[in-house]
Amino acid sequence: MESKKPLILVTNDDGITAKGIFSLQEAMLEFGDVVVVAPDSPQSGMGHAITINEPLRLKKGNFFESAEAYACSGTPVDCVKLGIYEVLHRTPDLIVSGVNHGANTSTNVLYSGTMSAAVEGAMEGIPSIGFSLYDYAADADFTNAIEVVKKVVAKVLEKGMPKNVCLNVNIPDLPIGEVKGIEVCKQAHAFWDDRFDKRKDPFNNDYYWLTGDFVLQDTTKDTDLYWIEKGYATIVPTQFDMTAHKAMNEIENWKI
Amino acid sequence: MESKKPLILVTNDDGITAKGIFSLQEAMLEFGDVVVVAPDSPQSGMGHAITINEPLRLKKGNFFESAEAYACSGTPVDCVKLGIYEVLHRTPDLIVSGVNHGANTSTNVLYSGTMSAAVEGAMEGIPSIGFSLYDYAADADFTNAIEVVKKVVAKVLEKGMPKNVCLNVNIPDLPIGEVKGIEVCKQAHAFWDDRFDKRKDPFNNDYYWLTGDFVLQDTTKDTDLYWIEKGYATIVPTQFDMTAHKAMNEIENWKI
Repeated sequence: MESKKPLILVTNDDGITAKGIFSLQEAMLEFGDVVVVAPDSPQSGMGHAITINEPLRLKKGNFFESAEAYACSGTPVDCVKLGIYEVLHRTPDLIVSGVNHGANTSTNVLYSGTMSAAVEGAMEGIPSIGFSLYDYAADADFTNAIEVVKKVVAKVLEKGMPKNVCLNVNIPDLPIGEVKGIEVCKQAHAFWDDRFDKRKDPFNNDYYWLTGDFVLQDTTKDTDLYWIEKGYATIVPTQFDMTAHKAMNEIENWKI
Repeated sequence: MESKKPLILVTNDDGITAKGIFSLQEAMLEFGDVVVVAPDSPQSGMGHAITINEPLRLKKGNFFESAEAYACSGTPVDCVKLGIYEVLHRTPDLIVSGVNHGANTSTNVLYSGTMSAAVEGAMEGIPSIGFSLYDYAADADFTNAIEVVKKVVAKVLEKGMPKNVCLNVNIPDLPIGEVKGIEVCKQAHAFWDDRFDKRKDPFNNDYYWLTGDFVLQDTTKDTDLYWIEKGYATIVPTQFDMTAHKAMNEIENWKI
């Protein structure tokens, strides 16, 4: 590429035909050269999965008016890897993932393909941001979300990103102008109290659908769940070092 | 269950027929009542993926001599959820995952189904440990690994686990008696320099295999990669809070 504009890789986990990625790639056009590599089918809940037991397919297509775009048979993390190493053959200046149809607040960051794509970007040393809108509908209105997206992207392109960190940005589902602000906060502590909906197939064999209730266990006020429920967009700086540094002493003292 | 023995849930990501889980469930019999819920096919690299777009199957089978066992069509995290909420209907006293055929040191913790099962256990408040042997062979010898497994499990059953933490235990591939010790350490900083092996299928369409080199970027001495290469088994206390607490100030100062 001859251009001096930033090179922006766009991906998601809802798939290349989702409304959220359409809005995201469109918004990125004013910031730089945009290449989309996104899953050819929904990949929600895929976490940091990569495809190693089967081959990957990658197809260029006219998905968008301006942005070069590829549909990939793999996971969001596969899309980032293919995007960097096979499509671009260089590291982009920015990776943006989403806009996800549904929140990725709290511990959902671990299950989220949207955020895993951003985490993978951070592992590759690239400023990366995952965006999610607190609306699960396929026809969700992303107008409001894109206002937040543009503010965050402009700031990251200006400031860069702390080393080994990406951003988890969640946006409340509010009418335009009603988002109260953007808060930097921490991942709330919560877990899924799972339920399995057990059914019989037509051949009388059991099968299960994973469902459940999300249970907040965090009463502190500086969390993403606290702020988003108050009408703020939230930014959780997110890292890939999973070491529980504070627990090291205790376990060393076990003297195994 | 009437027994006062600890209830131990066993899973893995190599699948219920892998040699590593056979050794692990056998070793657990001396510690408590053992129930195995493991994938019915290899799930390596599945990270923290959960199955939400299709239903799950769960089949009880005579996979092992003593342990009750179920094969599941889903991911390792699905197995933990099904194990707790559908098979046991209570929280087990311990979850062990593995023994993985291959190391899960460093940033591989993010891609690892073995470790994601342990992380899911921690999210549910259950003492959980992922075990991995530094030998990728299907017929790897787990004798040495099981010595380490038993030491760590005995200690965790005695001491409990720090809150919101699980253990990532990696074991070097050395003859019995040659493991030099067990070191508590941190996750090494490294990344995959990916390569895609591009091929043509018989119909002249491209497909790709994900391959690559693992590049160590960490020169500190208190990492899992440092110690395992010196012949020590390694324990990285691992958490599910991915907040980059140290980066919060910097990003707050952006004043978005």
